[in-house]
Amino acid sequence: MARENSVVFQPEGKRVAVRPDENLLEVAKLAGVDITSVCGGRGSCGKCKVIIEENRGNVSPLTEKERKILSYAEVAEGYRLACCTVIKGSVTVKIPEESRTGRQRLQVEGIETPVKLNPPVRKYFLRLPKPSLSDPRPDAEILLDELRRQKGLQNVEMDFHVLQTVPVALRRGEWNVTVVLWNDRIISVDPGDTTKRLFGYAVDVGTTKLAGYLLDLSTGKVVAADSLMNPQIPYGEDVIARITYASRGSKEQKKLQKAVVGAVNQMVNSLLEKTGVKREEVYEMVAVGNTAMHHLALGICPKYLALSPYTPANRRGVNVTARNLGVKINPNGNVYFLPIIGGFVGADTTGVLLATEIYKRDEVCLAIDIGTNTEVLLGNREEILACSCASGPAFEGAHIKHGMRAATGAIEKIRINEDLEVEYGTIDGEKPRGICGSAMVDFLAEALKVGVIDVTGVFNKEIDSDRLRGGEGGLEFVVAWKDETSTGDDIVITQGDIREILLAKAAIHTGISILMRKKGLAERDITLFFIAGAFGSYINPENARIIGMYPELPLERIRVVGNAAGTGARMALCSKDVRETAERIVGGIRYVELAAEACFQAEFLNSYFLPYADLSKYPETSELLRKLGKYPKKLPVYFPT
Amino acid sequence: MARENSVVFQPEGKRVAVRPDENLLEVAKLAGVDITSVCGGRGSCGKCKVIIEENRGNVSPLTEKERKILSYAEVAEGYRLACCTVIKGSVTVKIPEESRTGRQRLQVEGIETPVKLNPPVRKYFLRLPKPSLSDPRPDAEILLDELRRQKGLQNVEMDFHVLQTVPVALRRGEWNVTVVLWNDRIISVDPGDTTKRLFGYAVDVGTTKLAGYLLDLSTGKVVAADSLMNPQIPYGEDVIARITYASRGSKEQKKLQKAVVGAVNQMVNSLLEKTGVKREEVYEMVAVGNTAMHHLALGICPKYLALSPYTPANRRGVNVTARNLGVKINPNGNVYFLPIIGGFVGADTTGVLLATEIYKRDEVCLAIDIGTNTEVLLGNREEILACSCASGPAFEGAHIKHGMRAATGAIEKIRINEDLEVEYGTIDGEKPRGICGSAMVDFLAEALKVGVIDVTGVFNKEIDSDRLRGGEGGLEFVVAWKDETSTGDDIVITQGDIREILLAKAAIHTGISILMRKKGLAERDITLFFIAGAFGSYINPENARIIGMYPELPLERIRVVGNAAGTGARMALCSKDVRETAERIVGGIRYVELAAEACFQAEFLNSYFLPYADLSKYPETSELLRKLGKYPKKLPVYFPT
Ligand code: FES
Ligand code: FES
Repeated sequence: MARENSVVFQPEGKRVAVRPDENLLEVAKLAGVDITSVCGGRGSCGKCKVIIEENRGNVSPLTEKERKILSYAEVAEGYRLACCTVIKGSVTVKIPEESRTGRQRLQVEGIETPVKLNPPVRKYFLRLPKPSLSDPRPDAEILLDELRRQKGLQNVEMDFHVLQTVPVALRRGEWNVTVVLWNDRIISVDPGDTTKRLFGYAVDVGTTKLAGYLLDLSTGKVVAADSLMNPQIPYGEDVIARITYASRGSKEQKKLQKAVVGAVNQMVNSLLEKTGVKREEVYEMVAVGNTAMHHLALGICPKYLALSPYTPANRRGVNVTARNLGVKINPNGNVYFLPIIGGFVGADTTGVLLATEIYKRDEVCLAIDIGTNTEVLLGNREEILACSCASGPAFEGAHIKHGMRAATGAIEKIRINEDLEVEYGTIDGEKPRGICGSAMVDFLAEALKVGVIDVTGVFNKEIDSDRLRGGEGGLEFVVAWKDETSTGDDIVITQGDIREILLAKAAIHTGISILMRKKGLAERDITLFFIAGAFGSYINPENARIIGMYPELPLERIRVVGNAAGTGARMALCSKDVRETAERIVGGIRYVELAAEACFQAEFLNSYFLPYADLSKYPETSELLRKLGKYPKKLPVYFPT
Repeated sequence: MARENSVVFQPEGKRVAVRPDENLLEVAKLAGVDITSVCGGRGSCGKCKVIIEENRGNVSPLTEKERKILSYAEVAEGYRLACCTVIKGSVTVKIPEESRTGRQRLQVEGIETPVKLNPPVRKYFLRLPKPSLSDPRPDAEILLDELRRQKGLQNVEMDFHVLQTVPVALRRGEWNVTVVLWNDRIISVDPGDTTKRLFGYAVDVGTTKLAGYLLDLSTGKVVAADSLMNPQIPYGEDVIARITYASRGSKEQKKLQKAVVGAVNQMVNSLLEKTGVKREEVYEMVAVGNTAMHHLALGICPKYLALSPYTPANRRGVNVTARNLGVKINPNGNVYFLPIIGGFVGADTTGVLLATEIYKRDEVCLAIDIGTNTEVLLGNREEILACSCASGPAFEGAHIKHGMRAATGAIEKIRINEDLEVEYGTIDGEKPRGICGSAMVDFLAEALKVGVIDVTGVFNKEIDSDRLRGGEGGLEFVVAWKDETSTGDDIVITQGDIREILLAKAAIHTGISILMRKKGLAERDITLFFIAGAFGSYINPENARIIGMYPELPLERIRVVGNAAGTGARMALCSKDVRETAERIVGGIRYVELAAEACFQAEFLNSYFLPYADLSKYPETSELLRKLGKYPKKLPVYFPT
């Protein structure tokens, strides 16, 4: 038998026993040691760097993938990608500061859109006649008769699991009972009068985080809110990584479902604890999430979402009993997942649609929800177009040398003055550990304005500053010097990083631009521009406009609406009408599959410039650059579309 | 720690370890040793007699209940009631032959009533268009669209668990799929064309036995049938004993539910094995059973069925997903329990109603289903009355000295000639072990005809025969001498036994009689008399008429319909119309609670005579008795009603 091997994780000093040939990233996950893995362990994001401090011979040899990602210096220092490393004997491993996940900034707030209270869950108090030998009507019969007689309710069905409880409930309440209906289905019969206690739970299942809201359905008000990191993250930081993982087999798919349902339940538990509401008093849950989260949470195979033609399993909203999904609210309660719009435009976007009420506005509206996939909606009451842009995880820090999520110690704001001096702000005011997406947007805008980069995003070699220097993959710009940082290394932005962000912004711009073209609209036609999602809340819209991530609209037309998907879920929880609206409108939305558009390639190339190949579309930015003397001498190539 | 005790069961020689203070009947049950217990272990039926052969000091002292039931001779021989005996140390116990349950005669046959095939389960084969970038409709969307386009089906809903399987099923079938619908709900999507395979399962959950039928729903024919003893019997042989047991707590209630669902599943398994049908191909189950079986099988607290005013939990038919009930057919399949009529008139009687089609006949019909409870139906298309008579378990052998169920070795037929010589027939032609119900009916009629008993059921002391002799509780009649029997004892019928049977027959007659009176009908008005149930199939109708168990109708009006409840279940399985009929008619049936009827007591006393206090109601029997010189000199007292 093999001698028992162990791994010691530094600096914690945590020791765990391992079997031979275990994967180092897996071992760390199981041990609860916090290592970032944006690509889900596929060896492509380069975020899971660790240092083998002792017994380097006791791990598998360097892989091809690691050779590509790690620098010579790193290899020499013992750096490895945890996901590519197999343990062969006992080792000591150091997790460097930059590979830590850190405490994430989570957002639960969203706009409040007023809704007329009309939830499918209702309570009715009934005084029932006691049966007698001369009126020996069955229990359920009496209940249904009196529901009709006293409340005028017809065609009501009783859930089987409720029927099981009816004889005892009626007698325990001494023939005074409260009937709980979900639409026409009786989901509970409580002894006595419980009409005052009626709660619901709304959840936004995000790829990165979940936001949960406990609502009093008799007032429509939020009683408590909570948020939690999505525990699926270790299986892949973006949806494609998770779909890939889940597609390996039903065991893997179930693992991801269990993880997310577990998180949903964990939030319920903490909300119940905070408020003293009883589990049985929470009669419904409404969920939103992108198409991948929708499939994974509901236990639907997500594989075909990632394969052309990218079709989801269904569009309509899904209703399922809490019991059958394993959600720990009232087991007879309903779980409603909002309908999907199409492809990667999921129920979260339906939530945005509901919260922004684009579908009933006369004004032409544009709405985007920025993330690994950025969903775009364009239109008004007459017609709405939707698409999903593969903006990728660069804003989440992936593929960015010192990129990280919006967690403690992330540089979130950058200003560069004319002397190329850099001012930055970090989350929680901690010493910087890396750079998050909003600061990358700032950097591009600021660097463009001071001439550190040109409209193609290329560093200007002419610049004479310590900050711009040669790095391993070409030029790089130092944002924070090592004596300022918590990692002890300079924090830089490389030419490669700029390319990644440019790709992301180009993807978003392409989506917006194609939808506008399809509707024959120009920037000036857009009256309202909604920016949804946590990431969007932290971006400086002026800078996003300068770099061409947003179309050039007057800033006053911008509405930052926060977690609008969550708002939509809360609205649906409070109202049957909102659900009917959702089901009706999603069917009418024109889903545009960008990859199928003839002009996609050309528009993508045009969008790869700062702000755009055709500068006439960005007159204000052009004017600014002219003023600053940074207007390009040679205009970029514009591909007619 | 206590030294380990053991019980050895003889004659098997089976040894089991026991903890101190375990109940002997419980120990025997767990050890799989076969002991009869008609009262469910309450110490009242006296059927669980055992002999403590060794270490009599190692059991609890004799209880009050045992003193009442056991004779002095029995006590001297070491007889005990297993249910009243607590084990205190190691003992050897002999199970006498008469306490054995034996192999039970089970009946699955019933009349065939033709039904137009129209099951709620249907299959549709669809060729779907493959999605593409220009038509990226979600999978379920395509399916529902094509179901509408190709088959004209609207408003179809997809079961959540089916949605989970859709993406894989569509691709595995290469866009050729079979959609299985239960009414408007999609319960399966199979890859390829499976339209030829469509099965259903009908079950009659009897108090004593279950009968199961596997049907091909594309033809409506029975493919295979099976029957099984109800495994709840050890917890009580009649419904009241089981209700009492289940009312102790939810653990006990769940135990009974698990037992019966387990038996239902065991029959499915054996039917699948016999026929090669796959579990997934069985898409629905339809069940009938009396109200207690209905509640116990569905996990509804049955307690209030046994407490005045005897109200069941519901009347309507219950639909529940197989998954939620734990029934091992296709987990998305439906389980339908037919509606209840009221009180103890359960879904089995609804089955009888469907099979006999009383509700659509012009003729006035009477139908009875004899058992521990005997249900009576009277009427025609205009109106139907129903009641339940507490006929008790005497026909099952309870409270009858040598009574037993219709199992191997039971005397099932008796003839007594003028010399008081007895001819009898036994089940399976084995040496007699006891007497079952049908022979008790024969005995009463035969004994009346030859003058061994008079119209009050009292033995005629004047008779000079070895067969009529003094026994412990008065006179007794020897049916089989000990050298003929397998127990080595004389098999006798006591005065007490006659009283028990008279009570049972009086209960049935009272029910019939009250319903007839309520409708103002006389015997001659009844055109058809249906006798349902296994027990009824074995009774000699002529004798049943002589003793006044049946009304005096011409024999040609009698229809013995066997397991008509099972027939009704099969009909409902094959047809939505039959179900609609069932739901409609049960609501219109006038349920008569006999206990609430003013004339109940008087009529019951009148019915306690052979055949009846008012002999003018039985002119043919009167005539026969006159001919035989056995017409009573002094007429019984008749209580006007
Ligand atoms: S490279 Fe290892 S997790 Fe991404
Ligand atoms: S007396 Fe023991 S089981 Fe009935």
